[in-house]
Amino acid sequence: MDIKSVIRTIPDYPKPGIMFRDVTTLLGNARAFRTTVDLLVQPYAGLRIDKVAGIEARGFIIAGAVAHQLSVGFVPVRKKGKLPWKTIGQTYDLEYGTDTVEIHEDAVQKGDSVLLVDDLIATGGTAEAAIKLIEKAGGTVVGCSFIIDLPELKGRRRLEKLGKKVLSLVEFEGH
Amino acid sequence: MDIKSVIRTIPDYPKPGIMFRDVTTLLGNARAFRTTVDLLVQPYAGLRIDKVAGIEARGFIIAGAVAHQLSVGFVPVRKKGKLPWKTIGQTYDLEYGTDTVEIHEDAVQKGDSVLLVDDLIATGGTAEAAIKLIEKAGGTVVGCSFIIDLPELKGRRRLEKLGKKVLSLVEFEGH
Repeated sequence: MDIKSVIRTIPDYPKPGIMFRDVTTLLGNARAFRTTVDLLVQPYAGLRIDKVAGIEARGFIIAGAVAHQLSVGFVPVRKKGKLPWKTIGQTYDLEYGTDTVEIHEDAVQKGDSVLLVDDLIATGGTAEAAIKLIEKAGGTVVGCSFIIDLPELKGRRRLEKLGKKVLSLVEFEGH
Repeated sequence: MDIKSVIRTIPDYPKPGIMFRDVTTLLGNARAFRTTVDLLVQPYAGLRIDKVAGIEARGFIIAGAVAHQLSVGFVPVRKKGKLPWKTIGQTYDLEYGTDTVEIHEDAVQKGDSVLLVDDLIATGGTAEAAIKLIEKAGGTVVGCSFIIDLPELKGRRRLEKLGKKVLSLVEFEGH
């Protein structure tokens, strides 16, 4: 099953010059969805994973499936103000301005081994913030897994500099 | 495994008088998460399901896991303006004003049997809009499954009036 062939490219979205990689066509394809989850989980077979953390919103779909496949609990990483209980937050830089992601204070226990999952890594800003957040809570991010990597944006390198193991299933040039 | 006991109640959130039912504590519990998916899938064992549709954003987590368990494709139902390709939309009434949900034009094929999954049914407004959307695209919603039902808000009755089979795992009084 060629995962890459079922990802749709939408030129000039959300703005001119951007090639948007749309995973909804992959998720909608039963075989592609299952293969994707299998490939994301494979490197962690036999290793200790206590939780899967997924990043809002598209990342929730694939991360929910990965957590289920690994039979572990799920940690939602959400934009500021979306979680209903006590949170801890991490702010990160965007091209213009900043953004903040949050997790619940009790979402990760001290010593938890956490696998971070999202659909796509671009600059890695959100993923880096999520890692810091999980480790602030006392967990250890033992891996970061993405369906798509956009290598030009150097997100993988950014996470590897934090000493993290990064897995992506497909790469696209251009962004 | 008592699913209900691991759902956190947050009083006066998001506003005074509302008892917010927080499923993040359930999702974070490996056994509760797995049991929940099993219970949601059970009634559909042996029946034909082509797609699972999940409602943004919390619903994506549990619906992603259900789609994976059933080995079918996933259809994201998103708020207006969030999907990158051609969409069809459905507007529905809120207490004050209206809201719109969308799916991609090609997310559901003519004749698809679709299971709609969300974490919670309150008034059922969003779920009803999602059903109309899926059926506008040529699919048939063969069931609507929720972790939580708030019976006072009569969402279940609303979907049953459309002739839909509705499953919920736990009920809470008050809202």
